[in-house]
Amino acid sequence: MLKEWVKEEKPDDEVLAERLEKARAELAVRQMMIKEKKLPVLVIMDGWGAAGKGSVLGRVIKNLDPRFFKCETLTAPTDEEKRKPFLYRYFVRIPKEGAISFFDGSWMGEVTSMFLHEEISEKEYKSHLTSIKRFERQLNDNGYLVVKLFFHIDEKTQKKRLVELEKNENTSWRVSKKDKWQNKHYDKCLDVYDEYIETTNQFVAPWYFIDAVSKKWSELQMTEILIDSIDTALANAQTHQKAPMLQNTFSMKKMPKLSEVNLDKTIKEEDYKKELDKLQERLSELHNEIYHKKIPVIIAYEGWDAAGKGGNIKRVAAALDPRGYEVHPIASPEPAEKARHYLWRFWNRLPKDGHIAIFDRTWYGRVMVERLEGFCSENDWQRAYNEINEFEKELADWNAVIIKFWVHIDKDTQLARFTDRQNTPEKQWKITDEDWRNREKWDQYEEAVDEMLEKTSTKFAPWHILESNDKHYARIKALKIIIKAIEDKLKELK
Amino acid sequence: MLKEWVKEEKPDDEVLAERLEKARAELAVRQMMIKEKKLPVLVIMDGWGAAGKGSVLGRVIKNLDPRFFKCETLTAPTDEEKRKPFLYRYFVRIPKEGAISFFDGSWMGEVTSMFLHEEISEKEYKSHLTSIKRFERQLNDNGYLVVKLFFHIDEKTQKKRLVELEKNENTSWRVSKKDKWQNKHYDKCLDVYDEYIETTNQFVAPWYFIDAVSKKWSELQMTEILIDSIDTALANAQTHQKAPMLQNTFSMKKMPKLSEVNLDKTIKEEDYKKELDKLQERLSELHNEIYHKKIPVIIAYEGWDAAGKGGNIKRVAAALDPRGYEVHPIASPEPAEKARHYLWRFWNRLPKDGHIAIFDRTWYGRVMVERLEGFCSENDWQRAYNEINEFEKELADWNAVIIKFWVHIDKDTQLARFTDRQNTPEKQWKITDEDWRNREKWDQYEEAVDEMLEKTSTKFAPWHILESNDKHYARIKALKIIIKAIEDKLKELK
Repeated sequence: MLKEWVKEEKPDDEVLAERLEKARAELAVRQMMIKEKKLPVLVIMDGWGAAGKGSVLGRVIKNLDPRFFKCETLTAPTDEEKRKPFLYRYFVRIPKEGAISFFDGSWMGEVTSMFLHEEISEKEYKSHLTSIKRFERQLNDNGYLVVKLFFHIDEKTQKKRLVELEKNENTSWRVSKKDKWQNKHYDKCLDVYDEYIETTNQFVAPWYFIDAVSKKWSELQMTEILIDSIDTALANAQTHQKAPMLQNTFSMKKMPKLSEVNLDKTIKEEDYKKELDKLQERLSELHNEIYHKKIPVIIAYEGWDAAGKGGNIKRVAAALDPRGYEVHPIASPEPAEKARHYLWRFWNRLPKDGHIAIFDRTWYGRVMVERLEGFCSENDWQRAYNEINEFEKELADWNAVIIKFWVHIDKDTQLARFTDRQNTPEKQWKITDEDWRNREKWDQYEEAVDEMLEKTSTKFAPWHILESNDKHYARIKALKIIIKAIEDKLKELK
Repeated sequence: MLKEWVKEEKPDDEVLAERLEKARAELAVRQMMIKEKKLPVLVIMDGWGAAGKGSVLGRVIKNLDPRFFKCETLTAPTDEEKRKPFLYRYFVRIPKEGAISFFDGSWMGEVTSMFLHEEISEKEYKSHLTSIKRFERQLNDNGYLVVKLFFHIDEKTQKKRLVELEKNENTSWRVSKKDKWQNKHYDKCLDVYDEYIETTNQFVAPWYFIDAVSKKWSELQMTEILIDSIDTALANAQTHQKAPMLQNTFSMKKMPKLSEVNLDKTIKEEDYKKELDKLQERLSELHNEIYHKKIPVIIAYEGWDAAGKGGNIKRVAAALDPRGYEVHPIASPEPAEKARHYLWRFWNRLPKDGHIAIFDRTWYGRVMVERLEGFCSENDWQRAYNEINEFEKELADWNAVIIKFWVHIDKDTQLARFTDRQNTPEKQWKITDEDWRNREKWDQYEEAVDEMLEKTSTKFAPWHILESNDKHYARIKALKIIIKAIEDKLKELK
């Protein structure tokens, strides 16, 4: 694509100045429209070293209100960021509705550079490309405008600029080893960029090239592309178009319907105590091992109110070194969270590698409470099954152990526990009017949960049902599943 | 203190087991009381290497609900954290109301270690001690319970444990160079710790020693200290005791009353354009310089509604490299922010060194809108003058340039601008009913602003009044002040 690109001829100075003045004013108006219509806009800027991305960005934003945009410089990841999935540092920086974020450098620059410098294999590179395409598509489907710009200059121009920058003591620091390497291997890089662009050029986030021969001309091209893209996005937002439902392409683990689950399973008191001690001891050893081998572990708890999630989590946590895990109770999202992709708050809570994160309620709220209470559209929650599978695939590709529990009880048991909570002063904080209201919707929830279990129990992140009419039984089963999952991962990595 | 400490004799096994069982159950009850009464609790754990802090913490939390506490391991700061004030990584980790945070390692360990290893001078060390005392006092005054524990063992016990840990291949990684150094220089360390503890032992956050000879005994001591401290804090919370008002100990810059400010100052159109270009160019050069010298810059904007803050900020931002600054518009706090010390959300928004943060409205909301709307108690906002001065002192000690602007207009000018906004479709988003309501309270605000300017214009973080009836005049003045402040800092650091 890049190789065959036919550039628009650069207009003469007078025309350029005229168009620029008009474009600048129009972009400023667009910024206010974005704010009003609550459109989140992500502009990513990639391209050749010394193509002038930074100074063009500096020019473009001069006409914008600095309170409603952000610029992020995304060069090499920090040590902390390296301990998270590779998309992490981008996902946590996505703008909120009504705001623009400019990324100076992006996932394109990162993965192509790693590939060119042979820091990752071709297989890993391909897998990253798949992740990137999903990421960009998810942003679009969740209402984001993603504008991707590639600043293009030819080999000679780059060489000339690098030499000039290096000569001047005020600018020589800007020339990195990688820039020089890039110029020396210009054709090789061009091949890789061209293929990358071809692969990731999608309807939901197309590529735009910028002929970066002069600052003013670059600024004009970028500004006009932004105006067009914003206008299209604003017009589309009004039509409430539905995103297509994608077919599932992950292999699945077959799950039973909730009504088929046998809830009579129990464990004897003495066996419980013995097993609990033994399993906690084993989990404690494994925690040490994953810490050393830097394996991240994510344990997700969902289940009926009063099913015993809290007590179950407590028995797992009790086996862990407090410095190596965190429990995240998930309530309704805060305003800053609601103003972004619904998975944003979970990306923000991912553990470092070698650590364990336990979620008390999770991202599955999207296909349960948000679905049933109408907090998102039908298209939103229907799309979410695949979006969540893709999210968990990122975690799996990062070598995380992912364990998902549905803590299950029957309706009578719930009633007995609610009544007990109501009547016991120390437990009253655990029961609210909302619990009673949710109970009335049991059948709707059951249907939603059945659908969720069926559609999101992938091989890499399967669901497990914990029969919790007998809480002891459920705790022992949870510990066994966690232990087995970690042991399996350790074997796999050997 | 530590040297003269008379230990409680360790009870025999039977008594210990009995007391432990009772204490564990009581602590679990306290955790629910904390949650109900919304008390935030910060437990910091320091002490000798190999004193067993980690495993004792592991035992203590086994009886707690893991959804309502956090453990933080605070060993050496990351590279990112090193680019912030030294208290930053502690402040951003303070618990929210109703939750407990356990810090395994704290500011004590960090500053004493830096001092012992001669990474900071005695002067810097003393200055850190002052900062720490202020930090702990502010936490207490803002409703936090701070429990400080020092795990104590003697030289021989430490040596024995280090040797044993090193022998075992599963635990040898736990023995650091610093642990060995500590044991080799036990007496020297003891002197420093003893003096540190003496200096930082205050009514608002006293020190407790733990005789760390055995795990169970340590657990019992720690649990009982926590129970007592929580009971005291909960009882005190009910009495609504006022915190004492401290005298100001910082040297101040004399400020005029708002009514004395001459608002007739103007600048001619042609001079404005010339000056603006020249000043923006100079600021742009300086931005480059502070980036290289890693000087952080914080610019705070407060002012009347419609005084011209937005346009002023835009002219400053236009001179800056977009990769090196951020504008933070400050609205009312989100729930997670409201549940913590009111300065928490500003600590979270501090720039990295070498970067510029511009705040559009600031922490001074505490002594303006929060004071006038009754969002905090009288004691809260009266205390805030000193708390804010202390906050800015931390920034100054970190070598930040701090510039605070009050953007000033008169009442008639505000009315004219409000009316213009109301009547201009593109500007209507800028005017809300709240603006009109605030206008009605002009006199109360004026009184609050006068008091704020008088009490918080320190030499290290002075206020500047921008006469903004003529917005152009105010913009030029702002740029000049920013340039001078940065130039002064550059000279000072030479």
